[in-house]
Amino acid sequence: MKNDVRQKPHDQMASYLADDMAAVNDLIRDRMASEHAPRIPEVTAHLVEAGGKRLRPMLTLAAAHICGYDGPYHIHLAATVEFIHTATLLHDDVVDESGQRRGRPTANLLWDNKSSVLVGDYLFARSFQLMTETNNIRVLAILSNASATIAEGEVLQLTAAQNLATDESVYLKVVRGKTAALFSAATEVGGVVAGAPVEQIKALYDYGDALGIAFQIADDLLDYQGDAGVTGKNVGDDFRERKLTLPVIKAIAKADAEERAFWTRTIEKGRQEDGDLDHALALLNKHDTLSATRADAMEWAEQAKDALHALPDHPLRGMLHDLADYVVARLT
Amino acid sequence: MKNDVRQKPHDQMASYLADDMAAVNDLIRDRMASEHAPRIPEVTAHLVEAGGKRLRPMLTLAAAHICGYDGPYHIHLAATVEFIHTATLLHDDVVDESGQRRGRPTANLLWDNKSSVLVGDYLFARSFQLMTETNNIRVLAILSNASATIAEGEVLQLTAAQNLATDESVYLKVVRGKTAALFSAATEVGGVVAGAPVEQIKALYDYGDALGIAFQIADDLLDYQGDAGVTGKNVGDDFRERKLTLPVIKAIAKADAEERAFWTRTIEKGRQEDGDLDHALALLNKHDTLSATRADAMEWAEQAKDALHALPDHPLRGMLHDLADYVVARLT
Repeated sequence: MKNDVRQKPHDQMASYLADDMAAVNDLIRDRMASEHAPRIPEVTAHLVEAGGKRLRPMLTLAAAHICGYDGPYHIHLAATVEFIHTATLLHDDVVDESGQRRGRPTANLLWDNKSSVLVGDYLFARSFQLMTETNNIRVLAILSNASATIAEGEVLQLTAAQNLATDESVYLKVVRGKTAALFSAATEVGGVVAGAPVEQIKALYDYGDALGIAFQIADDLLDYQGDAGVTGKNVGDDFRERKLTLPVIKAIAKADAEERAFWTRTIEKGRQEDGDLDHALALLNKHDTLSATRADAMEWAEQAKDALHALPDHPLRGMLHDLADYVVARLT
Repeated sequence: MKNDVRQKPHDQMASYLADDMAAVNDLIRDRMASEHAPRIPEVTAHLVEAGGKRLRPMLTLAAAHICGYDGPYHIHLAATVEFIHTATLLHDDVVDESGQRRGRPTANLLWDNKSSVLVGDYLFARSFQLMTETNNIRVLAILSNASATIAEGEVLQLTAAQNLATDESVYLKVVRGKTAALFSAATEVGGVVAGAPVEQIKALYDYGDALGIAFQIADDLLDYQGDAGVTGKNVGDDFRERKLTLPVIKAIAKADAEERAFWTRTIEKGRQEDGDLDHALALLNKHDTLSATRADAMEWAEQAKDALHALPDHPLRGMLHDLADYVVARLT
């Protein structure tokens, strides 16, 4: 655990990749424009310029550089990945009926659900246009597969989130869909566009997959034990929204009949009362599932770092290593 | 005008292309499945098996055959086109808050808006997977451009539909987006996959574009003068939903101050009263805009037929010719 790093790993990457990221941002601004429908850049700018960390496009750029790429198309692919991410955020906010994202009102609140749905569709289409310009069928296959996995994971979450039969394997499928599929596609296409050998491409996929899973498990854990001032979320949001995540899934697996009845009432039936969140937290502590969840996140971060050994030595490889540590360093 | 044909042109095409269409339907059923999320095939089957005419995939198959194609990929492209169409229908019903489609309750009513948004996303992603399998970058570019134009047209419609400044050129952009872009892409990719010469590919694009525009203008006209028993729509739905379509756009262009005030109140402000639809119809008749709209549709159908001259002689070319007549034959 490197808690002593002065600059956060994604800030280090942003500095190292500053020229590339400027080109990615120019391309994003250029392609999110629409001659005919001014509503499109309005909505997109609201989200794109809200100051996300641009983690996913940086993963693509880093992977391409580590594998020695010196062509122009990693920029297109990085912008593609950010467009896919932005499109899914627009649609997620409609699906979740969210009112806030990154500390600002969501597009569906500022405009309407219609605009969020259609502008999301526009960005999906634009992302496919962008990747088509690379003339590389293999990256097209990877990114269209990832898009299908993302949508499938979201649909699965719709039906699985409030179902007490959801076990850790279903949770992992949802997490791969909603988070890890785009991380692993982002790193994999960086290697593919660089023409890297098959074992390096596999390593990049494995890194993105494990990093994405560690990232999402950490997020789900922080929902139950985070500091609202740091995470921007209130403790127990997932419980109140009746979302079955790993700490609760682990507690349900160990529940006695009375505890099971509690989870059925609060999550499956959604009949929550005052004091239920405290009782839920007590059950998570009783079965020690917060520690077990933290251990899982740590294990995925280790797997991410292990995958990096197959890649050439490179300053960006070191930053990817630190990034995997950073994702779980919040969980202390 | 061939009102004497015994079989409708799209039924003739369906008979002629029966083997191909069986393969397309198999591929659609295969690819709309999802191992992990059973909600996906439930929603998709509801729509895909509701008995649409499958006009768009037949256009792709016909174009490929006319240009002498004998490979397997026209099937993939036809399924791709139907997936894109189905995805846009799912999202349209959310955007329009529709309760009925093809005489059945819509997916957003039977399940929920979330499922319609996410399953639509899944089908978009699946469509890109399917087209990627053709290994043909040019068809990928055409279909991703069409997807962007569709979304752009829908967003433009959101902002233009209730704005009295919307003129015929904006209307044409919306129509190209919501209807003609997928028609023209469907025919164009059929020629491209067949390796047809550039002038044949242009002719196929022009045919699809003009057919799509004729089709949508006819639809918009029938909303004001159709027989509900035939069209399945009530006269005046677009007026009640405050959608500016060609008959009204033409009437607004000729409106005096009093008439303009009427359109401002009923369309722009949406303050409709009993008798307003009758008054609107009277204004359309006063300025003869239903006839003028019909003449426009006929003109686009003629352009569609003209484009066919550049294509090789083929039974399917004759059916495409009859199809252009049929689209406007309803307008008598």
